[in-house]
Amino acid sequence: MAQNNQIKNDAITRQEDDFAQWYTDVCRKAELMDYSSVKGFIIYRPYGYAIWEEIQNYLNKRFKETGHQNVYMPTVIPESLLQKEKDHVEGFAPECLIANIGGGQKIDDPLIIRPTSETLFCEHYAKIISSYRDLPKLYNQWCSVVRWEKTTRPFLRGAEFLWQEGHTMHETEEEARTEALKMLEIYDDLGRDILAVPFSKGRKTDKEKFAGALETYSIEALMPDGKALQSGTTHYFGTGFAQAFGIKFQGRDGKLYNPHQTSWGVSTRLLGAIIMVHGDDNGLVLPPYVAPIQAVVIPVAQQKPGVIPAARELEKLLKDAGVRVKLDESDKTPGWKYSEYEMKGVPLRIEIGPRDIEAGVVTIAVRHDGRKITVKKEEMVDTVIQLFKQVHQEMYEKACAYLLDHTTEVTNMDEFNKAMEKGGYAKMMWCGDEACENKIKELTTATARCIPFNQMPFAETCPVCGKKAKKVVLFAKAY
Amino acid sequence: MAQNNQIKNDAITRQEDDFAQWYTDVCRKAELMDYSSVKGFIIYRPYGYAIWEEIQNYLNKRFKETGHQNVYMPTVIPESLLQKEKDHVEGFAPECLIANIGGGQKIDDPLIIRPTSETLFCEHYAKIISSYRDLPKLYNQWCSVVRWEKTTRPFLRGAEFLWQEGHTMHETEEEARTEALKMLEIYDDLGRDILAVPFSKGRKTDKEKFAGALETYSIEALMPDGKALQSGTTHYFGTGFAQAFGIKFQGRDGKLYNPHQTSWGVSTRLLGAIIMVHGDDNGLVLPPYVAPIQAVVIPVAQQKPGVIPAARELEKLLKDAGVRVKLDESDKTPGWKYSEYEMKGVPLRIEIGPRDIEAGVVTIAVRHDGRKITVKKEEMVDTVIQLFKQVHQEMYEKACAYLLDHTTEVTNMDEFNKAMEKGGYAKMMWCGDEACENKIKELTTATARCIPFNQMPFAETCPVCGKKAKKVVLFAKAY
Repeated sequence: MAQNNQIKNDAITRQEDDFAQWYTDVCRKAELMDYSSVKGFIIYRPYGYAIWEEIQNYLNKRFKETGHQNVYMPTVIPESLLQKEKDHVEGFAPECLIANIGGGQKIDDPLIIRPTSETLFCEHYAKIISSYRDLPKLYNQWCSVVRWEKTTRPFLRGAEFLWQEGHTMHETEEEARTEALKMLEIYDDLGRDILAVPFSKGRKTDKEKFAGALETYSIEALMPDGKALQSGTTHYFGTGFAQAFGIKFQGRDGKLYNPHQTSWGVSTRLLGAIIMVHGDDNGLVLPPYVAPIQAVVIPVAQQKPGVIPAARELEKLLKDAGVRVKLDESDKTPGWKYSEYEMKGVPLRIEIGPRDIEAGVVTIAVRHDGRKITVKKEEMVDTVIQLFKQVHQEMYEKACAYLLDHTTEVTNMDEFNKAMEKGGYAKMMWCGDEACENKIKELTTATARCIPFNQMPFAETCPVCGKKAKKVVLFAKAY
Repeated sequence: MAQNNQIKNDAITRQEDDFAQWYTDVCRKAELMDYSSVKGFIIYRPYGYAIWEEIQNYLNKRFKETGHQNVYMPTVIPESLLQKEKDHVEGFAPECLIANIGGGQKIDDPLIIRPTSETLFCEHYAKIISSYRDLPKLYNQWCSVVRWEKTTRPFLRGAEFLWQEGHTMHETEEEARTEALKMLEIYDDLGRDILAVPFSKGRKTDKEKFAGALETYSIEALMPDGKALQSGTTHYFGTGFAQAFGIKFQGRDGKLYNPHQTSWGVSTRLLGAIIMVHGDDNGLVLPPYVAPIQAVVIPVAQQKPGVIPAARELEKLLKDAGVRVKLDESDKTPGWKYSEYEMKGVPLRIEIGPRDIEAGVVTIAVRHDGRKITVKKEEMVDTVIQLFKQVHQEMYEKACAYLLDHTTEVTNMDEFNKAMEKGGYAKMMWCGDEACENKIKELTTATARCIPFNQMPFAETCPVCGKKAKKVVLFAKAY
């Protein structure tokens, strides 16, 4: 770290003073979102939406490479259709938004604004699947869903949010289970490759499973306030929906079978993970590969001859190299601009003024650690590309270190409580009994986040009941 | 045309027998869409959705180049908010889908599932615009909208359709008017560059304007059944909404002003235009630059040694050249595959069998005119790229010729009626009186499609009332 140029930005609450308020402040001051007049329905402003578009670009590429196709299903589900799968409707009925007037007339079978689209996909699949030759069907949809939540927070829990939902049908159980795990890997890659967020991967306990699923897998991220954020899930449904919706195919032996189903999704909740994992008291800090603006060029003393042309040349050099660059020529002061792009978490700020021009150099300020470096103009592009890689790696490693430091193995309830006080995960050997899960929730408000794939047993008994322990489970308070 | 290999595909109705049925047959048999259980809400199947994605890619690039930013607004509009602009609510109230139960509770201010988002954008703009420095705001949204229509047809008129809606705010009237015309040009370019559909551009009459707009411009496409299809519109709103929503900015002179507003949109209706303008009795015919699959490789006698590897090599060569290519290795017969990809309108089919391999050649069949050509394998990639350009141009010129042939200058109602019998546009000099527009609609069901920008007066009097004619107008029956 050469020079540290970080100045406290007074526009937002400090993390240590009130983390929740800091979060909301960043969401608004970084112009990621705004509130609408309907509670829980937010406006995704250009800067916030552009982050989502980068996530979409990454995932669309990965989804298509793995044979998936995008589709679009209706935005409404007839109430009678949602009721076809019993567990599913029980899970979603309490938070449905229901339309029952169309063109001034009462609608006989009320329409639910989709909270998730399993039922719509199943209705369609029943029509287009008849032979093993029609399988697999690997569909994905980008859309918004509506869930009438009482308590809402920007990106984390909303009455409406943006997501993708994959819905697939397979000939065999094995293939479907593989699909559910494969998609979880892609979500994990997303975190490692562009979000710089390490996820804990695992299976959900029966209590925490998705409504109607036989198996739910999740990626969980750990926030700096010690709470876990479920960031994506994949589900294996078995043939339950297929039976309820009459989806059958003629197998290779000529007999009729129900196909095996999966679904999987990530949402704009990921923006919440990025904001919290990387943000600081100066605002947002974006990892370079998901940042809509990767570098901002700020002319210093821009009224002096030659400065604007020099700044434009830097912009062009970076643009030609494929960098998402912005040149800010507005008449605000450089100091004002520095604060603004710090708040917006732009990874690199490139300053150019008369003295830099004379010396043939530019100054690069790195958002996440405040360091400043001066390089020759000819070396700027290579340095910037190199810095993206380095900054991404540093941000990822920092988040990994926090995760490791806040994952505590516990063997009794005393240790459990201490782990909760510290914040993060209590890694516990669990007997497998839902009663113990309930007891923990009652005593600590923590829930089982996942049964990690990486099982390394370290104790013999369940800290709650003292019976034989079977599985390593990560417990945490959660969003 | 070297060899003509077109065979009547019995799966669909012939155009001359029943054009409307032919259209629906193509929509379904080409697997573009399917019906859901709610009337008017269709399923955009992968192949149909992929065409929309190509349109999105083209437009997103053009929108971003011209300084526009994507956002996402809520899917619901409180009834009270929609009512703020009088003309607007009158236009949309009859076709609203209204939700009034959320989480089991009655909602006091019922929520309308957005039919269009002017009101939401205005509510937000009122919060974020305060100075001329905040202008222009150039936002666009990709989403679906819901309009409770009684009569629906796939892509042409639906209870739900996909679209983009741009909503912009400007400092001056001139800038806003320029924006509305600029976006119309981009839509026109879309037709010429990738859809191979010529549009007639012009201004709408007052009668045909959008609810709340001062000026509506449109692009109109002519269908082979002689009916016009409104394919995109742009609107200049003046300051009407801005006043209704209290949007004000401090101008350069320190005084307060209302900004000038535009909106503009195209929808999945464009798929209807592509289907009808280019389709034939064998199904869909896609112009190359909007085709999700631009070329399909079909191995002939694929069980023979060397055929599949040779076909895969062709696939790789084309893929490496950036062609959207598909290799069909399935165990269906080549004849079956030919019909399938003809139905799907794939521009080029590339056949490779043992004799071709021996001779070092491939056979290319061109969908739109049935011609077949044989080229050396080494020349395949260049030929394919060249053919895309040529095929696109031929399809565009064919559509232009049809448009020209079906635009008839009329100077009296007898000629008007004959033009309607022939199908297409009656190009008429109009007095400007809405009574004459109404009279024409009453007598012929035709409506004023647009007042073309290219005004070449050719008569003195209005054919309806005999008064002095002022403007050239294109009338037609329309979808």
